[in-house]
This record gives sequence, C-alpha cells and structure tokens, in this order.
Amino acid sequence: MKTWIQEEYKNRISAESVNDSQVGKQLFFAGWAFRFRDQGGVIFIDLRDRSGIIQIVARKELLGEAFSAAEKVRSEYVIAVSGKLSLRDADSVNPKMKTGKYEVIVEKLEILNASKTPPFALDEFDPSGEEVRLKYRYLDMRREELKDRLILRHKLTFALREYLDSKSFLEIETPILNKSTPEGARDFLVPSRLNQGQFYALPQSPQLFKQILMVGGMERYFQIVKCFRDEDLRADRQPEFTQLDMEFAFVSEDDIRREIEEMWKFSLKKVFGLEIPTPFATMPYHVAMEEYGSDKPDIRFGMKLVNVSEIVKTCDFQVFSGAIATGGVVKAICVPGGSVISRKEIEDLTAWLSRDFRAKGLAYMKHGSAGLESTITKRFTPEALEAISKAVGSKEGDMVFFGADSTKIVNASLGALRLKLSDKYDPPKSEYSFHWVVDFPMFEVDETTKSWTFLHHPFTSPKEEDWDLLRDWKAGKSVDLSKISAKAYDLVLNGAEIGGGSIRIHNAEIQSLVLEAIGIDKESANEKFGFLLEALSFGAPPHGGIAFGVDRIMMILTKSQSIRDVIAFPKTQKGTCMMSEAPGFVEAKQLEELKLRVVTI
Amino acid sequence: MKTWIQEEYKNRISAESVNDSQVGKQLFFAGWAFRFRDQGGVIFIDLRDRSGIIQIVARKELLGEAFSAAEKVRSEYVIAVSGKLSLRDADSVNPKMKTGKYEVIVEKLEILNASKTPPFALDEFDPSGEEVRLKYRYLDMRREELKDRLILRHKLTFALREYLDSKSFLEIETPILNKSTPEGARDFLVPSRLNQGQFYALPQSPQLFKQILMVGGMERYFQIVKCFRDEDLRADRQPEFTQLDMEFAFVSEDDIRREIEEMWKFSLKKVFGLEIPTPFATMPYHVAMEEYGSDKPDIRFGMKLVNVSEIVKTCDFQVFSGAIATGGVVKAICVPGGSVISRKEIEDLTAWLSRDFRAKGLAYMKHGSAGLESTITKRFTPEALEAISKAVGSKEGDMVFFGADSTKIVNASLGALRLKLSDKYDPPKSEYSFHWVVDFPMFEVDETTKSWTFLHHPFTSPKEEDWDLLRDWKAGKSVDLSKISAKAYDLVLNGAEIGGGSIRIHNAEIQSLVLEAIGIDKESANEKFGFLLEALSFGAPPHGGIAFGVDRIMMILTKSQSIRDVIAFPKTQKGTCMMSEAPGFVEAKQLEELKLRVVTI
Repeated sequence: MKTWIQEEYKNRISAESVNDSQVGKQLFFAGWAFRFRDQGGVIFIDLRDRSGIIQIVARKELLGEAFSAAEKVRSEYVIAVSGKLSLRDADSVNPKMKTGKYEVIVEKLEILNASKTPPFALDEFDPSGEEVRLKYRYLDMRREELKDRLILRHKLTFALREYLDSKSFLEIETPILNKSTPEGARDFLVPSRLNQGQFYALPQSPQLFKQILMVGGMERYFQIVKCFRDEDLRADRQPEFTQLDMEFAFVSEDDIRREIEEMWKFSLKKVFGLEIPTPFATMPYHVAMEEYGSDKPDIRFGMKLVNVSEIVKTCDFQVFSGAIATGGVVKAICVPGGSVISRKEIEDLTAWLSRDFRAKGLAYMKHGSAGLESTITKRFTPEALEAISKAVGSKEGDMVFFGADSTKIVNASLGALRLKLSDKYDPPKSEYSFHWVVDFPMFEVDETTKSWTFLHHPFTSPKEEDWDLLRDWKAGKSVDLSKISAKAYDLVLNGAEIGGGSIRIHNAEIQSLVLEAIGIDKESANEKFGFLLEALSFGAPPHGGIAFGVDRIMMILTKSQSIRDVIAFPKTQKGTCMMSEAPGFVEAKQLEELKLRVVTI
Repeated sequence: MKTWIQEEYKNRISAESVNDSQVGKQLFFAGWAFRFRDQGGVIFIDLRDRSGIIQIVARKELLGEAFSAAEKVRSEYVIAVSGKLSLRDADSVNPKMKTGKYEVIVEKLEILNASKTPPFALDEFDPSGEEVRLKYRYLDMRREELKDRLILRHKLTFALREYLDSKSFLEIETPILNKSTPEGARDFLVPSRLNQGQFYALPQSPQLFKQILMVGGMERYFQIVKCFRDEDLRADRQPEFTQLDMEFAFVSEDDIRREIEEMWKFSLKKVFGLEIPTPFATMPYHVAMEEYGSDKPDIRFGMKLVNVSEIVKTCDFQVFSGAIATGGVVKAICVPGGSVISRKEIEDLTAWLSRDFRAKGLAYMKHGSAGLESTITKRFTPEALEAISKAVGSKEGDMVFFGADSTKIVNASLGALRLKLSDKYDPPKSEYSFHWVVDFPMFEVDETTKSWTFLHHPFTSPKEEDWDLLRDWKAGKSVDLSKISAKAYDLVLNGAEIGGGSIRIHNAEIQSLVLEAIGIDKESANEKFGFLLEALSFGAPPHGGIAFGVDRIMMILTKSQSIRDVIAFPKTQKGTCMMSEAPGFVEAKQLEELKLRVVTI
C-alpha cells in the first residue's frame, strides 16, 4: 500500500459529510465502489462508506497513466481517492442522492483491495435469499437496511445508558457462568473442567443477581446484557438475546413506571425523533383479558371483545346457551365493513381457530339493512339481536363474530381473530402505543401439571393486602389462590410485551409462603436459590425492577419483519450461524478433558 | 408496610446530598442502620445508603410511643425516616464524617426489614476472611471499598462509551454462542441440543466477528463484552472477564494509538480526575526486552538491565565467559542502596529465581568504598570492574546483580528481580505510566513444539516491507522468519499489559502465507475460520484494532490487590462462585436431552 494513503487516513472525510464550504478543496475519501460506469475516458464511481454515497469522477485527460487504476475498479473494490470537491452541472444534479449536487474530481486513486463478485446485489432488497444473506452477513451489512438498523441499535442502547447514568443507575456486570435454576425455560449448560461432573448454566436473566445487588445496597442497577434460553426456536426467538435489565430499591410500583416512561420518552425522542406522550395508559389484567382476549393487547384499534353471555344465555341456539350452562362464556367482536368477508374466508378462519386455539366453531352474523342476519338468527328473539348489535356497536355493512366456549378458548381465539382482521378492517390509528398492563394474578393453575404456578416469577411480591390470604392458606384455611394479586406490571408496545417486572418480595416469611404455594419445598428452594433466600434475611430493602427485550423493541421501532433483522449475527431457527457454521464438532481431546461422552443411540 | 412510606419514596434524599439550604426542612431518608447507640431516651443511628452516612436522632420526649420502633433497630436493619435536618451543636460536630455537622431529628421512623447479625464487621476491613466475604458478597458490597469500586467501574465504562460514541464508534453485539477455534487458550463448550454431538464455544474474544464487521463496512466498532477462557486459574485470572474491544477501518497504527490515548485521557480525567499526558511514550519490543527483560516493562523506576557481555566475555569467571561462549549473555542491574541486602536474602532470591525462572545462580557485587567488591571480583581486571560500574551506574552503597545464561532466562530472571526489589530500593516515581510497546516480531519458535508460532494472533499484519520475506519463504528461499516484524502494539500501564492490538491482514494472499508459516494448513484454516478468509476476498478494507482488559485496568486504577476486588460476583481460582455455588450438578434429564454422559473413571 502506498504511504501517502496511510498518512491521509486521518484526514478522511465521510461521503455524506460534504458541504458547500468544501467545494474547491482537496478532500480524501475511502470506501467501496458501489456502482460505476465507464464512458470512455471518463469513469464515474459511486463511492460508498458508512455514511452514504458520493460520486467520484476520473478523467483520463487529467490523470494520464494513473487513469488505469480507475479502469480496474469493479463492484465492491475498496478504493482511496484524493480529489477536488466540485458542484455538478445543473443538468447532472441527482436530487435523489443526498450528495447529488457534488462530485469529486479524482487527482489520485488507489485500489486498496479487490473483491470477488458478491453473490447477491447490494443495491436492492432480495427477501427470498435470507440464507445467502446470513452466510455473507458482511455483504448484507453493507446494504442500507441492515446498516441503518445496527446504527440505530447502537444509538438506542447508548441513549438508554445516558438516561440511566443521569438518574444514578449503575451498570453492574453479573456472571454469565451461573448455576442451573428452574426458571421455566431450558438452560444452556457449560461443563466445568475444574469441577468434574458439574455444569455452569448460562443465565436466562440476571434475576437473582440483581436482587442480590439490591440487598447489597446498590440501590439502582441496570445492565444491557445477553441472556440465553435453549428453546425450540420459534420464528422470532433467538437462543441468545439482549435484555435491558433494571432493579431499584426503595420504590413503589408507580415510581418505577414513571421512571421507565421518562426513559423511553427521552431515548425515543433522541434516537427516532418520536414524541411519546407520558404517562402511559394503564390497564388491569382482567380488563385486557376481558376486552382484548390478551394480556398484551394492541389498543391502537377497536373490535373489542364484548361479553354477550347475559343476552344469549336463554336463547334457542344450543352452542351459545350450552357453553354458558357449562361455565363458559359467549363473546362477540364487530368487524367494521366486515360483511364483505366471504363464506370461503370464514371457513378458512374457522379451520385456523380450531387448529391453533381449539375453538369448536366460529358463529357469525352480518349486519344488513334489517339488522343482524345469518342462518342462526332465527334462534334469537328480535330483542336479543338488537341487544347484541347495540352491545358490539354494529351498523350496516359490519360483521359480528362469536366465540362460545371456556373463557380461555374464547379469549384466545377471538383475540387472535381481532388481530388478524385489523389490518384490513380497522387499521391501527397511531404508530406507537405504549401502555401498562397491571394487577396480574399471582398464581394460576398450570394446564399440564394441574398444580399452582406463578404468572411472573416466584420472587414477585403479592400485594400487601393479600398477604393474609397466603397466611390463611398456610394455616390450612380454604383460600382461592387465584384471588391473590401480584405487584407486577408489563409494558406493551403495539400488541407486543416489550418488558415485564414487579415489586419483589423482600421478606423471608412471604418468600417462603409463595414458594410453598407453588410446590417448591424448602430443600429444593435452598438448593436452587438458597443464597437469595438467605440474603433476604440480612436486611433486604424493599425493591422492584423490570427487564426489556432489546431485540423485540428494535424490531418494532425499525418495522422489521424478523428479530434476525436487528441482530448483527443472528442464528437460524435451528440455532446455527450460517456464517461461522457454529455449532460444530470438537476434538476428542476437548471432551476427554471435560470427562464427557456424546451418547449416540 | 405503611402506605406513607411508599408515597415518600419519590422524595427520598440520599444521605450525603444534604446541604445547608435544607436545614430546618422535613426530609425523607431510607437505608441501613450502620451503627447505633442508645443513650436512654435518645437513640443515635448512623443511617447508611449508597451515598454515605448521616446521623439520625430519635428522642423519646418527641416521639412518645413511636420511640419503640427506634428501640428495636439493630445493625443492618433497613429503616425509613422522616425528620427535620438540623445542625449539630458545635461540640458534637464530627469532622471525619462528610455530613458530620448535620443530624436528622426523627419525626417518623419505620423498620422496613430486619437483619440477622452479619458474619463479619461492615465498618472495618478484614482481609483474612475472603471466603466469607465472597459467600456473603451482598454484605461485602455494603462496605465502602467494594461499593466505591463498583461505582467507579460503572463510571469508567460509561465514560469510555461516551467518548467512543462521540467519535462515531458503534457498539455492536457479537455472539456468545460461537464455534470452537484454536486461538490459544482452552474454550468453554456449550453442548447444542438441536444439533446433537455438536458444541458451541464461548468466545475468547470477538476477534473474528470484529474483523467481519470491518469487512461489512461498519468502519468503527467497539464493544464492552464478556470473554471466556477455561484456563487453570492463576491468582489474577477469572474464567469470564470483560474486554473493551475495538476495531477501525482505514487507519494507520499511529491513528489508532492517538485515538486510544485521547480515549484514556478523557475517561481517566472524567472518572478519576487524573491528568494523563499524551502522546504516550513508545518503546520498541527489542528495547523493552533488552533493558527491562520484559515486553511489559514498568518504566516508573530505573534499575535497567545492562548488557555487560562485551566487558566480561574474556574474564576469568567461567560462569560469565562460558555463558557468552555458548551463545548466551551477561546482564547486570544496579540496586540503589542495595548493599544492605543480606546474604540470607540473596540466598532466598537465588532459590526463587532458580525455581521460577530456571536461573542457575545469582552473582552479585557490592559497591563499597573502593568500588565493586565480592568473592568473585578477583576474577576480573580492575578495568573490567570499573567498566561494569560505569555501565550500570553504581555508586557506593549500591548492589549489582548479574544474570548469565541464555538471553531468555537472563531477561526473565533479572526482569523479575528488578520488579521485586523496586518497592524497597527504587520506588516508582509517578503514579500512572502509560506507554506503548511496538515493533513486535511476527513469529517466534514455540518452546514445546519447536515450530513457528505467532506472538499476537494469526490475523496480525506483517509490516509491508517484510511481505517479500514471506513470499521468498514460500518460494523455498532461506528466510529467518524471526526477522519479520508485525504491525502490533501493546499498551502497558505500570508494568501490566492492559491492551494489545494490531493492524490486521486485509489481503487474502498474505493471510494464507502467514497461516502456512505457522503450520496451519488450508483445510484446517478453512474449517476453523474459513468464513473470515472468504470475507477477506470480498473487498475487505485495511483495518486494525485493539482490546483492553477492563478488570485489570480497574484493578490498577483502584489500587486493588486482586482482580476479584473489582468484579461484583467473581469466581475463585477453582472457578466456583462462593455465593451461588455455581457450578453444580444437573438433573439426569438435562444431560439426556443433550445426549451427554459424564464419564467417571
């Protein structure tokens, strides 16, 4: 490489930083040849760097022999150029380019590196080829979409840190090599060579450690940190993901929510220029379930679920009255303008709801000129039809869908139907909608084991007014555990849960009762997180916190289709990296040192 | 818990934030009872929070019945206090306390949580009990030493991020679940459940990914990131450690060094109030080895190694002349005032150098009133003794030690002796000394395998002027590979290597030659890091970078004795966490899912 270039690096100008005051000046650029055309004696190159693009013009008449370097340039060659910034002729100005009124007249041009022809075009989006784009991630990264997302991700995490530092939060690193605990999902394990037969587990979250930090008096903690779950990967999950993890001492639920709102307001304004109104709306869990059939409702549009059980419980339609008689419920949603939905479409919807949500059917009524009508309307009195229409707010041209089953199935299926039809019939009214879901129940019955389990996690505090219910339960009195409320809160953005947290238990007695209620006995509790239980007995302050899914948030804010689009080096659904080909087989010696054997069946 | 407290949290004042303008005002504090004394009717409590301590005074005459809460307070109880800030009487002012002129007259006091008696005192340092302090890390964290270090660590990483953001660096996360590569140390492995028989490896550094980010056009990258090495742990190593990892495109070695110097200047000024002069001094590797016997010399004091081979090669002392005759070297250091070192001490030093550095002996001469004298001086001419004294700069009262052996053994042993004796005989002259070591050789012969290996890593670029030597070597010509210089640089602080980096190879031909020179054949190279080699052929820009050990830097800057002192939750030398008891045994089901068996012998 020529020495003049190495000395020029420090004077390097980024493509899109040029401005009128530099016209006529000798500038130095380095980057990639994005597009080029040879007009015989004049070669035009769009030089691309991280900032964008600027046009470079090499003229044979000016360069003489040195012109030959420009002739050798091909797509994605790395070049260094020294030249004079000039204004283009009026008729060559490209208004679509940010630097479209400038060009750089080459005085020196050097090829810093050649490039093979890329396996896909870098100036257009080819959604069909994700495998190839993942394999050549470094080429995909040169495209504007991915590059911009990675820049925005840096800016967002930096803005969050800036806000949190200004509010006296300390970023404290917690260990990656942990102990395996039963926190729900499956742990990734790391065999320990120095402690044979034993394993570390990668953290699913720093939950125990952040509580320990509160017991340690750190008062306000945060960390932007990798977490891990060895799950069968769904479309938008990754085995390793990034959390903004936070914990505060001496706080109320309200204090935490206000601080979080200001954090997002500051960060989204700074990075995306968004104005987010605060405080965020708050919705109790039971309202979210009742009206949206979901604990993470998208409230940017209507089509709410309306409970019509009272109206239909005595009707002649056995599907409805029977569902209610057996303890179920009948709910309806009104789809504005939905009367155009064809019979075929309804059949497809019915099949989908049956397959994915175990819904037994999908009753419906069109709102015609004479009110609600369908094959089943004759089973209802005119007053009942009128009452249904009024309850759901239907008008001519609308379609009303019904769910009749257990509350759980009705909520899940109508909630899903609502989301599916919204884009077409009731598109979201605002771009971003943040709101809190609060007042979660502390316990629910696990469908598989039929025993009590927690909704959030076993360190979430029940509301103080419900502590006596727990004590009564312990004393053998008949207590409905589902009536105990948790001091928990989720933050929902556009129908996605982006964060969840709670006030924690800081009292050893209540912590024991909660663990007992969900069937974790003392011995097993001590083995798994005995150190936290012990810490609670050494002056643990009242504390609470929250954790946010950074990948998910970036995905929503950049309107990406997949979580892979906001991660520099994502893994496929099989947990592999197309580029580095991780995971891989290892040498026998490595397994010997770990005293491990792979068991082939 | 009382509702008034939850509503007061948002008005909470930190102990050491009080000032004169608040005197007479009703303030709310919450924290731990650090010390307390009951003077019958008046209870004094030192309330401690993260900021520090303030004295709380509960008077029975003011509180009446409510006084009983104050009477129940014990060490490390968590309390909330509402009271009026007052100035103490002149004779009760405590000038040793930052808030020593204030006290808070309690109007309300609530115990938020009780505490068992801590297993060690929190108001004094007990260095003997590290195991207990690690087990109860949350209690140790309440002590000023550890608390302050964690706060400084947050401040340092934030300042670094602030500087790097302002200089257009992007923080980009690289994967933790990687492929195992032969990068020197042993990998931690993570079995893959979805790809049976295969393993991920935890990263020893993000080296390959950061180079890929440069090929991807990210231009300036950094990350503060956990790295992992499964080594037999020495005193100041941890299995997981934190790096500040950086990479730049389109840079020269000088550009990188200037940027790094400004980064440290900014950060240390902001966090520690230190004025660090820039640019840092630069020392070639061969000078560091010759004069300090180390590639990370502590240059804050003298006692340099002086090569006296020319003077002694013909002397009558066979230990010296023989070492030189067999290709070795004789070097000396002068210890100022060292003539007081006793014979017994010298015997101990000799045994230590023999055991740890394979030195065959430790010759010495005192500088007395008549010049150098010892049992061996009769083997030297007066002119030689004079020349030695002049070369090492000895004067009356000094001691001169000699090493005579292979260059490697002499450098290692005299370098170590120099460090050991400096505190007593030539204490460091400045508090912090940053300097660069540069011009490293590219290759060295591995002592074990007797084959060529790299000093830094196989992606380090040889200096351009030496590329032809590599090509000659490939063409079968006789080339001494040790003559090839690398574009590598280490940053040394007070005799510790705190960072190391290099300009990388961005050229596929040179990369292949380097790999071949160190005996990595094409097939094995492709299997291990083929994706990087392929990336280099798609328009890789010239690039280079550096990585810093954050733990080590924090240790030096906070004058800590151990790396464990600057990590919130460190592991022992056996890789265990005394608090959480990681690693641990896992359930049989977990291993079954991974198709793994622990092999007990």
